[in-house]
Amino acid sequence: MTVVNVAINGFGTIGKRVAEAVTRQPDMRLIGVSKTRPDYSAVVATRILGYNLYVPADKIEEFEKAGIKVAGTIEEMIEKADVIVDATPGGKGAEYKKLYVEKGKPAIFQGGEKADVADISFSTLCNYEEALGKRYIRVVSCNTTGLLRALCTLRKAFGLKWVRATIVRRAADPKEVKRGPVNAIVPDPAKLPSHHGVDVKTVVPDLDIMTAAVVVPTTLMHVHVVYAKLARSATREEVIRVFEEAPRIILVDASLGLKSTADLVELARDLGRRRYDIPELVIWRESITVNGDEIVWIQAVHQESIVVPENIDAIRAIFKLAKKAEDTIRVTDETLGLKKFL
Amino acid sequence: MTVVNVAINGFGTIGKRVAEAVTRQPDMRLIGVSKTRPDYSAVVATRILGYNLYVPADKIEEFEKAGIKVAGTIEEMIEKADVIVDATPGGKGAEYKKLYVEKGKPAIFQGGEKADVADISFSTLCNYEEALGKRYIRVVSCNTTGLLRALCTLRKAFGLKWVRATIVRRAADPKEVKRGPVNAIVPDPAKLPSHHGVDVKTVVPDLDIMTAAVVVPTTLMHVHVVYAKLARSATREEVIRVFEEAPRIILVDASLGLKSTADLVELARDLGRRRYDIPELVIWRESITVNGDEIVWIQAVHQESIVVPENIDAIRAIFKLAKKAEDTIRVTDETLGLKKFL
Repeated sequence: MTVVNVAINGFGTIGKRVAEAVTRQPDMRLIGVSKTRPDYSAVVATRILGYNLYVPADKIEEFEKAGIKVAGTIEEMIEKADVIVDATPGGKGAEYKKLYVEKGKPAIFQGGEKADVADISFSTLCNYEEALGKRYIRVVSCNTTGLLRALCTLRKAFGLKWVRATIVRRAADPKEVKRGPVNAIVPDPAKLPSHHGVDVKTVVPDLDIMTAAVVVPTTLMHVHVVYAKLARSATREEVIRVFEEAPRIILVDASLGLKSTADLVELARDLGRRRYDIPELVIWRESITVNGDEIVWIQAVHQESIVVPENIDAIRAIFKLAKKAEDTIRVTDETLGLKKFL
Repeated sequence: MTVVNVAINGFGTIGKRVAEAVTRQPDMRLIGVSKTRPDYSAVVATRILGYNLYVPADKIEEFEKAGIKVAGTIEEMIEKADVIVDATPGGKGAEYKKLYVEKGKPAIFQGGEKADVADISFSTLCNYEEALGKRYIRVVSCNTTGLLRALCTLRKAFGLKWVRATIVRRAADPKEVKRGPVNAIVPDPAKLPSHHGVDVKTVVPDLDIMTAAVVVPTTLMHVHVVYAKLARSATREEVIRVFEEAPRIILVDASLGLKSTADLVELARDLGRRRYDIPELVIWRESITVNGDEIVWIQAVHQESIVVPENIDAIRAIFKLAKKAEDTIRVTDETLGLKKFL
């Protein structure tokens, strides 16, 4: 079996999760991760998880002074890799791309980059086959991934005429103590559309979609309210069955006490999920309302982990390790324990 | 070896954690847990964790309708137990005590009960030996437990003349979406002292302590600022060594990026700790300030999990399963993986 050597550039919210996911894949090997600051996360990476840590050349001394073992420079990591997952802060990926190109390495970028950083914007359930053999792939952002999971599932089953969606965004990730708002609701932006619908169209260009977003003071998950018109009439039971059978989507019951994002996180904690991650799109079963060809529902997106499976699939697409979406989904979802929620 | 049969009455924040901790003890057996509502937590208890679930007699039908397997009534659970850990909501424990007495069973109560519910108010590092053979033991609340861990450690090492402490309380547990405040700082109460110092004195009666508390909008952890006068002068290095060597206390470095309760939780998640629990008292190393015999420091208390080790120790005290504090601490802390933080 081909085993691809993967390097993770950036060990933040997404990088650290993709790194762990890579170590669980039968066809991938994690050769190292990079960091620019010698903080507790670098200690976890090296001392607890045993990863090779690569840092900027001018920071080696600083890391070693902090007692953190350094395996080499970021350039050296890139040279050793077959592919780089760029999980650097938004906008930095485009700068790093020059280095990846110079070293002749393919790369995966995150949704914080502009679409033109890559050959294709990607979401497994929508366009895996189109990404096969591409050299630079951009995994769209958490909110866009959440929207696309549901929308491509419905499109395949019923066809989709239009989508109008409201994104109620979390303000910051749990550890981002300097980000706000802590006490306001912020249209983001006030001038519509929000970028989410535009971003959906980088993956599904022909979709009539409009989105608006507001930021609210919470760190746990995003919530979307989605209105859509199907290409044909459907029953509520049909829609529920389609969602239930789709990969990476789970339906939950508010009647079982799962009434909020806080309850979803509590359940993930009770289930012993590492970091309480919920890489699945979560749809509240009660919210699914179908009137002929119109449908409305409410869904929750765990911003820290939802793109992890798509990053793994994107690596397989570059090297054609799986020819069909269903083949990569099967391996990724089994190794990451997806859809084992309740 | 004697194995004690333990029942957990109440499967909320504390009950579910003590139940799991009991299953890890070599000298205890979990015979069941009780719940009054058939929610997702009941599904986790039965279907995922395989616990026997006991419910009020008039609720059996409701649980079974929800597809949740019931092992019997709460009365039946109590009859089967050698000891009950009461983790029912504050104040309910005193009502349930009648039942425990009627069935002739010893019990552990939580800090939400008044001190007179039990024969002794308890904190392992302070008064384990006094609790040996007692029939009813009250484990003091999370904030009091946090204070006592540090104070009894200092008292043993240096002696303590007085303590003045400010408790900055979390507003609600993560899933309590109906509790506030979401945007205020609330003196709790305005009339001093707060109950925490009074509660400390239920365990260490002769200590001169005054506490004041304010509630702030967060769910992660409490934070205390503690001022104390030792019975003799000490150096900062001595104090740090005493805290480092104490069980159930960990020192963390803000300089390593652990600057807030959010960072502590992020690290617990990165370490793969179940539910991101931090049963240890966390002291910021940089905050420790020593001037002769006066000392100040800042500490964090994970309200959901800090009392779990003390509940386990309290069970051992009732049955004299360990004669000395150090003997129960060794087993409890090893089985719960304490002090393996970074």
